[in-house]
Amino acid sequence: MKALVLHGIHDLRVEERPKPEPGPGEALVRIRAVGLCGSDVHYYTHGRIGDQVLQAPMIVGHEGAGEVAGLGEGVTRLEIRRRVMLEPARSCGECEFCTTGRPNICPHVRFSSVPPHDGIMCEYAVLEKERCIPIPDEMSFEEAAMLEPLQVSVHAANLIRVAPGETVAVVGAGCIGLGCMELARVGGAARIIVTDKLDYRLDLARRLGADETVNVDGEDPVEAVSRLTGGRGADLVFECTNRAAGQTQAYELAAIGGRVALVGIPAEDEVRIEPHRARRKELRVQYVRRSRFAERQAIRLVASGMLDVASWVTHRFRLEDAAGAFDLVERYADGVLKAVINP
Amino acid sequence: MKALVLHGIHDLRVEERPKPEPGPGEALVRIRAVGLCGSDVHYYTHGRIGDQVLQAPMIVGHEGAGEVAGLGEGVTRLEIRRRVMLEPARSCGECEFCTTGRPNICPHVRFSSVPPHDGIMCEYAVLEKERCIPIPDEMSFEEAAMLEPLQVSVHAANLIRVAPGETVAVVGAGCIGLGCMELARVGGAARIIVTDKLDYRLDLARRLGADETVNVDGEDPVEAVSRLTGGRGADLVFECTNRAAGQTQAYELAAIGGRVALVGIPAEDEVRIEPHRARRKELRVQYVRRSRFAERQAIRLVASGMLDVASWVTHRFRLEDAAGAFDLVERYADGVLKAVINP
Amino acid sequence: MKALVLHGIHDLRVEERPKPEPGPGEALVRIRAVGLCGSDVHYYTHGRIGDQVLQAPMIVGHEGAGEVAGLGEGVTRLEIRRRVMLEPARSCGECEFCTTGRPNICPHVRFSSVPPHDGIMCEYAVLEKERCIPIPDEMSFEEAAMLEPLQVSVHAANLIRVAPGETVAVVGAGCIGLGCMELARVGGAARIIVTDKLDYRLDLARRLGADETVNVDGEDPVEAVSRLTGGRGADLVFECTNRAAGQTQAYELAAIGGRVALVGIPAEDEVRIEPHRARRKELRVQYVRRSRFAERQAIRLVASGMLDVASWVTHRFRLEDAAGAFDLVERYADGVLKAVINP
Amino acid sequence: MKALVLHGIHDLRVEERPKPEPGPGEALVRIRAVGLCGSDVHYYTHGRIGDQVLQAPMIVGHEGAGEVAGLGEGVTRLEIRRRVMLEPARSCGECEFCTTGRPNICPHVRFSSVPPHDGIMCEYAVLEKERCIPIPDEMSFEEAAMLEPLQVSVHAANLIRVAPGETVAVVGAGCIGLGCMELARVGGAARIIVTDKLDYRLDLARRLGADETVNVDGEDPVEAVSRLTGGRGADLVFECTNRAAGQTQAYELAAIGGRVALVGIPAEDEVRIEPHRARRKELRVQYVRRSRFAERQAIRLVASGMLDVASWVTHRFRLEDAAGAFDLVERYADGVLKAVINP
Repeated sequence: MKALVLHGIHDLRVEERPKPEPGPGEALVRIRAVGLCGSDVHYYTHGRIGDQVLQAPMIVGHEGAGEVAGLGEGVTRLEIRRRVMLEPARSCGECEFCTTGRPNICPHVRFSSVPPHDGIMCEYAVLEKERCIPIPDEMSFEEAAMLEPLQVSVHAANLIRVAPGETVAVVGAGCIGLGCMELARVGGAARIIVTDKLDYRLDLARRLGADETVNVDGEDPVEAVSRLTGGRGADLVFECTNRAAGQTQAYELAAIGGRVALVGIPAEDEVRIEPHRARRKELRVQYVRRSRFAERQAIRLVASGMLDVASWVTHRFRLEDAAGAFDLVERYADGVLKAVINP
Repeated sequence: MKALVLHGIHDLRVEERPKPEPGPGEALVRIRAVGLCGSDVHYYTHGRIGDQVLQAPMIVGHEGAGEVAGLGEGVTRLEIRRRVMLEPARSCGECEFCTTGRPNICPHVRFSSVPPHDGIMCEYAVLEKERCIPIPDEMSFEEAAMLEPLQVSVHAANLIRVAPGETVAVVGAGCIGLGCMELARVGGAARIIVTDKLDYRLDLARRLGADETVNVDGEDPVEAVSRLTGGRGADLVFECTNRAAGQTQAYELAAIGGRVALVGIPAEDEVRIEPHRARRKELRVQYVRRSRFAERQAIRLVASGMLDVASWVTHRFRLEDAAGAFDLVERYADGVLKAVINP
Repeated sequence: MKALVLHGIHDLRVEERPKPEPGPGEALVRIRAVGLCGSDVHYYTHGRIGDQVLQAPMIVGHEGAGEVAGLGEGVTRLEIRRRVMLEPARSCGECEFCTTGRPNICPHVRFSSVPPHDGIMCEYAVLEKERCIPIPDEMSFEEAAMLEPLQVSVHAANLIRVAPGETVAVVGAGCIGLGCMELARVGGAARIIVTDKLDYRLDLARRLGADETVNVDGEDPVEAVSRLTGGRGADLVFECTNRAAGQTQAYELAAIGGRVALVGIPAEDEVRIEPHRARRKELRVQYVRRSRFAERQAIRLVASGMLDVASWVTHRFRLEDAAGAFDLVERYADGVLKAVINP
Repeated sequence: MKALVLHGIHDLRVEERPKPEPGPGEALVRIRAVGLCGSDVHYYTHGRIGDQVLQAPMIVGHEGAGEVAGLGEGVTRLEIRRRVMLEPARSCGECEFCTTGRPNICPHVRFSSVPPHDGIMCEYAVLEKERCIPIPDEMSFEEAAMLEPLQVSVHAANLIRVAPGETVAVVGAGCIGLGCMELARVGGAARIIVTDKLDYRLDLARRLGADETVNVDGEDPVEAVSRLTGGRGADLVFECTNRAAGQTQAYELAAIGGRVALVGIPAEDEVRIEPHRARRKELRVQYVRRSRFAERQAIRLVASGMLDVASWVTHRFRLEDAAGAFDLVERYADGVLKAVINP
């Protein structure tokens, strides 16, 4: 089978690999759609994310969907041709975090396309049966591939809970930010303000339900939100950028008594916080790590039509052309929000 | 001024009363709309609700709105002609419940139109300034009068929290039930099922957002919800009837892991629960008592157009004709949901 | 090996069974202590619990501890002679409850010594490696066997949360009730009142930290708690009896704004609730089903000396004499609280 | 009457002031004990705290207790000679925070001894009746004066909730830190580690229940806590210093899945956070602002003997000598933890 393999910085190759065989409790899945995540591109650009360094060729990709093409021994709830989304994380099941219902912070987790674990941008992959989650017939493979990033937003919203009538600010309008924004809308936010530096993303935010958008290259976002809220700020702020400045801003955007969900992964190693206003506002700040127990909820919200994730997909590539997708996303070019590879 | 005074069972009289004067910290309010609550009618029919017995003539009504017509000493944040909703409850401020942020369960609370405290179905009333809550200009007095029952639903929803994607059942489609249903919709319920015995109320429920309705005279509601949910039940059940059977049903309608909010006030003194299924489902059951800290949220949700309470009002009466409203509501006649008196 | 097998009502036999072999991912455990649970005795007396009927001979017992005596393929974190407690429940891992972090309400759960699943009152048992949970060296096997019922109390306390300074009532002083009482003490209860009909259990409750005890044969518990609390009632009530009357009482014992945890399993099929006081108190009622994610917390609390479970054990039997233990517990004779079988 | 008046930096004078008269709803209180708070000393040293600047002579002090010496009109639940603690904060009662049950973040709050509002280091003070909170006869005035700082710790513990069995770290062993530590103990912490730079405070921490203490001048606290917890960290961290470095540390001390309560007020205007570890740990961070609804709980915990606040008081001064107390606290001299003024 064909697989997209990262050998080093800017060195991505389509290679032939043997088609894998499912063992006991596993399923073979014919991959049909894989979203290109910012972390995939980060490995492509830098060869590492923090401590996690690419040391051997690795198949990339972890936002995927496909259909079951083979079953190992003892797999009873899946059948051939069953359409599934693929859960990239496999927690250990035995540590204190797994055994207290928090597998998303398991320090022993194995995650597809985080070195040294191969991802799924290939024609076939083998996964444990629990990681192959059935999707409804009416859901497209592309939508199903979007469920993985959507889960992060669902988890963030579950941790911080929108209350009906609240004002919500979303800092950063990538897929994670858009997911948080859609969840804020669905959860009853009376007003949603989204900030980003890319107009085409803000346009999409408005189409998906944002009441106001702010291009941070044109106006200071703290001033803008203050202006839009009569000096009050937002009850709830979702920070979804990749910059430390986004986190600093998030604290400032929050109203007295507000909550801040830090979902984004900043490039920098330090964030600077002004502690006095944060204390006088009695902020609650929640860091968000991957997702937990969010798959079914994400599926239900998309299947019911409440959340639109199909709109996120701006570009489609064949596996053979996938390196082009990486270039595109690396440069935020051509209005790209999410590129999907169809192996 | 004219006032509607209950002298005893089925003995309601329009009387002349002296126009009151606001004291320090109080406001005089020209009453413009008062909703007729089930509890008002209960006193009209039975002369009592449980321990609370009508022992002297009492002005009825507590769901009200009006405009400020006079200010006592030391009132700074209100002005003449300011449009306000009227909070009927006045908690003591000193008991252990008031001083721990739970004024709605203050045992010393004084509540308009609960004997011996006069209500507000009259031309003018005096209230403490904190109980005169400004409403936006664009909100009608009728809508503002509906904020009082809506607050109960808001409080119920705050206590039990809808999560996006949940299935919600509402037992009883009076105003409280409709309010809970609308809050479920706003809070992200993926599917809402409403039960009642009156078709015209179920019709309104569907217009306001119910996905399915069940007339309990035509089909057993437990079977119906089971059928509609593939045997699963509802994640969240709002019980909003005035019958013990509604509570028994609510436990049955809940899914495994479900929550039940008991908002209605049953006529009976005993409710029978089947404990084994409730335990195996690990239900959480929340009784709901009036409301707390819900006024501003209710105003915001109505003012933003997210909740529709104007549709609740089916009948309007002048103060002089208000006895007819009581007869109508007593008999559930003429498609009545909410009758409003305009003094 | 020897095993204690229930063939029918009052028909318990010590039998020879083949020593089992661990498969992949499983461990063979030499059983060293098994507590006798009320549910075991219920099957012994009635042959069933509700829908769950003994239809074939079954090894009884599910509160157990032992040491690892054999390892199947792929078991890496356990070793021979490792001392372990045994988790009786095995949830399915795939249903909507398992995949949303609530395995304790998995409807497909398999539970040791619930028909048709054999228990562990035998010399050796095979369990999945995740169900063999290491205990500290200084913890006795008897203490470790008590962790299983303790987990239920830990789960109850986790669901309902004691706040420092609260008054707590515990209805029923069996092991579950004593566990809840100890957790209330550890969680900061300022005052704990325990009710039961057996003086020797109330004596133990006082030794383990109860401030007051009430023998319900001598005084009405509702009156007693009212007297002891100046008419106020308890902030939090743990109901841990096997009677419907205990649940009815629990609602009455709660203060305004109180919470009730229903942990006990009543013999009756109906519980009668007075709804008006419950509503005016705005009670929160939490049914409790088994336990979730509580093993490590239970181990830590016992290992640290904060909770005393060793005191629960009043009687010890060899496997050969275990039928005598069932008779004893069936009759609440000889001051029995917990009998332990040492195979 | 005599009053201690701050005229400017290091300019504190005992002056004669007219004895005040209680108006309607107010009580006159004979002040019997006032604790010296770090904020009082901050005004003494710097003449300001952030935006709040001393612009006119002001009576200092806000941690007080006394007995009722006079009653204004309409005060019914207090009587002459009733012993009371004094609540320094008076929230507006009308803003969105007051009316949603969060008076502690009311931006219009008036707080005793925050300019321009006089404090209570004087012989008599007049307060609204709701701010005179009865204490039990057996509680000393000194203990009652300690209830005000204790409330802050109670509020912090209420926001962040200790779970039985947790490991808790407390950064800073002033009165607020000691209060948090005692609440952690009462709430079931299995292990408590306290850090400070003053050995005499660490000694007291151990006497009041700390399991381990770390002098940060002798050992890096992050390394120390890592060593003491086997690299795991603390489930819960209370930050109670007056330095930005304390906050940075608090994030580092927390375990995976941990919570951080930021209670201290740093001198600096910027705090630096390492965002990646915080995110991978999925920390929850709660800023804490004053206290809400904590008075009765604080009284109950002290009155029941569960919390020891009497040990906090290391020095006592007459009103005439109070300037000496300010010098002492300013220099952390003579083993001072809390100095109390007895007017």
